[in-house]
Amino acid sequence: MNPANNQVYPVIWHNNAVSLIDQTRIPNEYAFVEIHRSEDMARAIKTMIVRGAPAIGIAAAYGMYLGAREIETDNRDRFLQQLEKVAEMLRATRPTAVNLFWAISRTLKVAYETLGTVEDLRKVLLQTAQDIQIEDLQTCRAIGDNGLKALPANPEKLTLLTHCNAGALATGGYGTALGVVRSAWREGRLNKLFADETRPRLQGAKLTTWECAQEGIPVTLITDSMAAHCMKQGLIHAVVVGADRIAANGDAANKIGTYSLALVSQAHNVPFFVAAPISTIDFELADGSGIPIEERDPMEMYQVGDTMLTPASGVEYYNPSFDVTPADLITAIITENGVYPPGELALSRQRRTLA
Amino acid sequence: MNPANNQVYPVIWHNNAVSLIDQTRIPNEYAFVEIHRSEDMARAIKTMIVRGAPAIGIAAAYGMYLGAREIETDNRDRFLQQLEKVAEMLRATRPTAVNLFWAISRTLKVAYETLGTVEDLRKVLLQTAQDIQIEDLQTCRAIGDNGLKALPANPEKLTLLTHCNAGALATGGYGTALGVVRSAWREGRLNKLFADETRPRLQGAKLTTWECAQEGIPVTLITDSMAAHCMKQGLIHAVVVGADRIAANGDAANKIGTYSLALVSQAHNVPFFVAAPISTIDFELADGSGIPIEERDPMEMYQVGDTMLTPASGVEYYNPSFDVTPADLITAIITENGVYPPGELALSRQRRTLA
Repeated sequence: MNPANNQVYPVIWHNNAVSLIDQTRIPNEYAFVEIHRSEDMARAIKTMIVRGAPAIGIAAAYGMYLGAREIETDNRDRFLQQLEKVAEMLRATRPTAVNLFWAISRTLKVAYETLGTVEDLRKVLLQTAQDIQIEDLQTCRAIGDNGLKALPANPEKLTLLTHCNAGALATGGYGTALGVVRSAWREGRLNKLFADETRPRLQGAKLTTWECAQEGIPVTLITDSMAAHCMKQGLIHAVVVGADRIAANGDAANKIGTYSLALVSQAHNVPFFVAAPISTIDFELADGSGIPIEERDPMEMYQVGDTMLTPASGVEYYNPSFDVTPADLITAIITENGVYPPGELALSRQRRTLA
Repeated sequence: MNPANNQVYPVIWHNNAVSLIDQTRIPNEYAFVEIHRSEDMARAIKTMIVRGAPAIGIAAAYGMYLGAREIETDNRDRFLQQLEKVAEMLRATRPTAVNLFWAISRTLKVAYETLGTVEDLRKVLLQTAQDIQIEDLQTCRAIGDNGLKALPANPEKLTLLTHCNAGALATGGYGTALGVVRSAWREGRLNKLFADETRPRLQGAKLTTWECAQEGIPVTLITDSMAAHCMKQGLIHAVVVGADRIAANGDAANKIGTYSLALVSQAHNVPFFVAAPISTIDFELADGSGIPIEERDPMEMYQVGDTMLTPASGVEYYNPSFDVTPADLITAIITENGVYPPGELALSRQRRTLA
């Protein structure tokens, strides 16, 4: 389960259950949680045992199958009705990442379009979850390799900066933003990676550094507020981040702090790339103003381990989990189909339709 | 020692010793450390039991007196020689805040200029430390009131944002940036304060919220990376920060993250004020490029309480404690003598010379 080749897969189908890497315990422990029921999957998504837009999509697809397995009927219509309830429960876990909704819609559609018995539908739902997972891994590898072509040609050895964790842990494996970093490392084009620690959940400090350390990719941790100071000294050649939802015009929602990072990148003329699968693009949304921004428990801000950081009373908290980076701050969006300036995102859709 | 009026004084001369609020234990504990020896004062400054540029200056001035008390000679020249050693030890504690060097220079100058016995010199050194402390408190009140005039006239109730802690804890009392906040609160012009948590040492989360909670000033904590998102929503009317050293052209060194905050303020047309006593201005330095930037122990980044945030190996750290905000991002510098656009800082000096 801890693969000898150091590759990290956050969601594994194994012994008729889903094994999730418990991402709340990394880097201190590399442990798996076994998920047998759809309700437990919803909780795992909500509590961020599994996180990262594409990984949430994969987990939700398996959650749909687990839900399908729990429905006790041979009647196709009643089965589909019940399956809609499972979908509803899973959709209610996290509002921002579109991959969640995309994966649930895709599995539902497959169920409706599949002829045959309820048992046939269950089988096709499992198959769909596995397809989504395998496709995501292939997608990430394509994103990584496409990203490599988009990176600045000079210097030969680049220092990149990323925010949060858009790595193997956030996807089927390999990662989106970290997929670009991995491809650059493989091809000898990476000097090193700067990782923002990414408050409040510290995915950069905990997860991105861990992924890099697993593979020997040189990584330097900074706090979120240090990026501008690093750029002013010319230490960073390009920024690569993931996304949780991209609107049709290229506005991109991603982990809180991404917008701030895009602004300071622009101020220093540092190229700013968003790496994400096409499934992250929400072509129904004209622009980023329609993306719902999840607010999470303030406990994420005032408690680290057993340590309380703030006074017990007299303090309010604001904990938006995402922000929206406007398209005009984004150099290009790196997808599995190619690299597009935000204004040309529609081309990625045509290509996908043609493929 | 815990004043009933809720006023906070980080440095108190009491029973022939210096009582420092142990700022590493706030907000969990409001405790004092008694400092009897100059060496212990140097350690307290280095380990940030006392921190904040003006408070460091005050503490160092008392440190000079404690050192003077330890020198066992009646010979004036030998005494002054030894006093230079005390100054050297205290100067070596923290490189960025100019108030440290300013306070030490002032006490040394007074010693050299005082006629009389070694015992007379000791007395004048204690008097100078007390003068510096009282002057700083008056200075902060003047900064607060001057700042009030510089703030936007609309809306009537302003929402301000600050970074780190430039409060009572960082000064003789009242604070510089928080002095402006206090004056605004007193005059009914404050809706509320947003406080950046200020990684890695979390002075915003731990100290600024605590100061506000003590006095009932409404405060909302955000992570450093959230400021841009808040500004985009129009939640913030002005930013007020302190400074550790300001160059003659108005470039200002302050806690890491200030530069990033100034960039995102500019992008949203949010006025950005630096509040600091004249003693923070280093007229010898033409611009900010000459300000030494302290790098601190990476432990500040990877450990919070007993919790280790990152993998035990395979990760590097970069922990600059300050950054420099260029003058062109600063709306005005608020001093005890008045409010100056960065390009007109020299006027503050003339005024001081005349006064």
